[in-house]
Amino acid sequence: MNCRVIGLDADDTLWHNETIFARVQERYRALLSQYHDAEAVDRTLLATERRNIVHYGYGVKGFTLSAIETAIELTGGKISAKEIQTLIDTGREMLAHPVELLDGVAETLPTLARSHRLMVITKGDLVDQQRKLTRSGLAEYFTEVEIVSEKDPATYEEILRRQGTEPAQFLMVGNSLKSDVLPVLEVGANAAHVPYKVTWALEQSDEVPDAPDRFFRLASIRELPDLVS
Amino acid sequence: MNCRVIGLDADDTLWHNETIFARVQERYRALLSQYHDAEAVDRTLLATERRNIVHYGYGVKGFTLSAIETAIELTGGKISAKEIQTLIDTGREMLAHPVELLDGVAETLPTLARSHRLMVITKGDLVDQQRKLTRSGLAEYFTEVEIVSEKDPATYEEILRRQGTEPAQFLMVGNSLKSDVLPVLEVGANAAHVPYKVTWALEQSDEVPDAPDRFFRLASIRELPDLVS
Repeated sequence: MNCRVIGLDADDTLWHNETIFARVQERYRALLSQYHDAEAVDRTLLATERRNIVHYGYGVKGFTLSAIETAIELTGGKISAKEIQTLIDTGREMLAHPVELLDGVAETLPTLARSHRLMVITKGDLVDQQRKLTRSGLAEYFTEVEIVSEKDPATYEEILRRQGTEPAQFLMVGNSLKSDVLPVLEVGANAAHVPYKVTWALEQSDEVPDAPDRFFRLASIRELPDLVS
Repeated sequence: MNCRVIGLDADDTLWHNETIFARVQERYRALLSQYHDAEAVDRTLLATERRNIVHYGYGVKGFTLSAIETAIELTGGKISAKEIQTLIDTGREMLAHPVELLDGVAETLPTLARSHRLMVITKGDLVDQQRKLTRSGLAEYFTEVEIVSEKDPATYEEILRRQGTEPAQFLMVGNSLKSDVLPVLEVGANAAHVPYKVTWALEQSDEVPDAPDRFFRLASIRELPDLVS
């Protein structure tokens, strides 16, 4: 396929993220295990996160606040201040976590950057995403970094408008059908789905992309140079 | 003075913000008053915020997390889960707070927008700042909205580069000498200081702007159209 600009999602597309959350959530279940089983903990935390997204947006700070709130709720207020402090400490550890690139990213980006203009388009906390990009060593390959509050059609339209890029000239690459593929196809651009081994519940989608000539499934980011060459 | 593009800070330049924090901090002191006097509470909270800025950046979510952590510290872990929940609730109230424009803003922006390209340049949480801009009713006057993690010379340089705007053609307007004036003068652009009645400790600066022909002091945003006409 032919495109001039490639947008790349960051978390779970360039570097591991959901696996860090999964490890944290395991500790979280253990903390609350004397009160509730794992299923109830997961379900309640997810409900809190879903309710709070409109206020907090995506990212570690909102997750930490939702985790504290859920712990208070699930223990009927019996959780101790000391245990709440461990949740705050865990959030800060997540914000200081080393950036681990996904397989193939370090080799593929320099190749792509020689032939295409590359952008990062990601949700999450501003400071955290900038930190991860800096630590990733990948910043030099991107001409633009867009940290957005929601990845919906309006967001992509606005980015393309600002860049002066036609939808047909744009390819978005990411692990989330809901955020990186469906809204991109909706505005008439191209999208490549590179699944990650875990998908956060709030990123799951039952909708199936319906744009055979503009939608591509890749098993790895390593297949991207061939797709766009 | 002559300029083509005007950047406006948001919190305490377009709408009230620090006064909301001040009211919240008053309730916070009351919550902890049986443990420590107001001065100790303020000092410890500020120290926590300062330490956490590198992880959390600016905004309500980071403030809430720092307030919880400080309360645990100042009560030696004796604060109850229920009291911590009130801090979380307060944070969410702040995120849902009505936007109150500063005097003169509603009348001045339409005038400025007819002759100049206007940008919002602000720190803080992504979702929160976008919400406030939407609720302010001012969004239509701005061609660009930049929500940044830090307002330093590199940030302003990057914005000007991306906009293709010469520093001499740019005027930044805001209430913080530290964020809206000094770094702007440093990159060779123009800056107007419109003080707000309260300045957050972490925005205070002892440095005095030294660029007589590029620095302007205004008593109100109402003076801006005359300055740039």
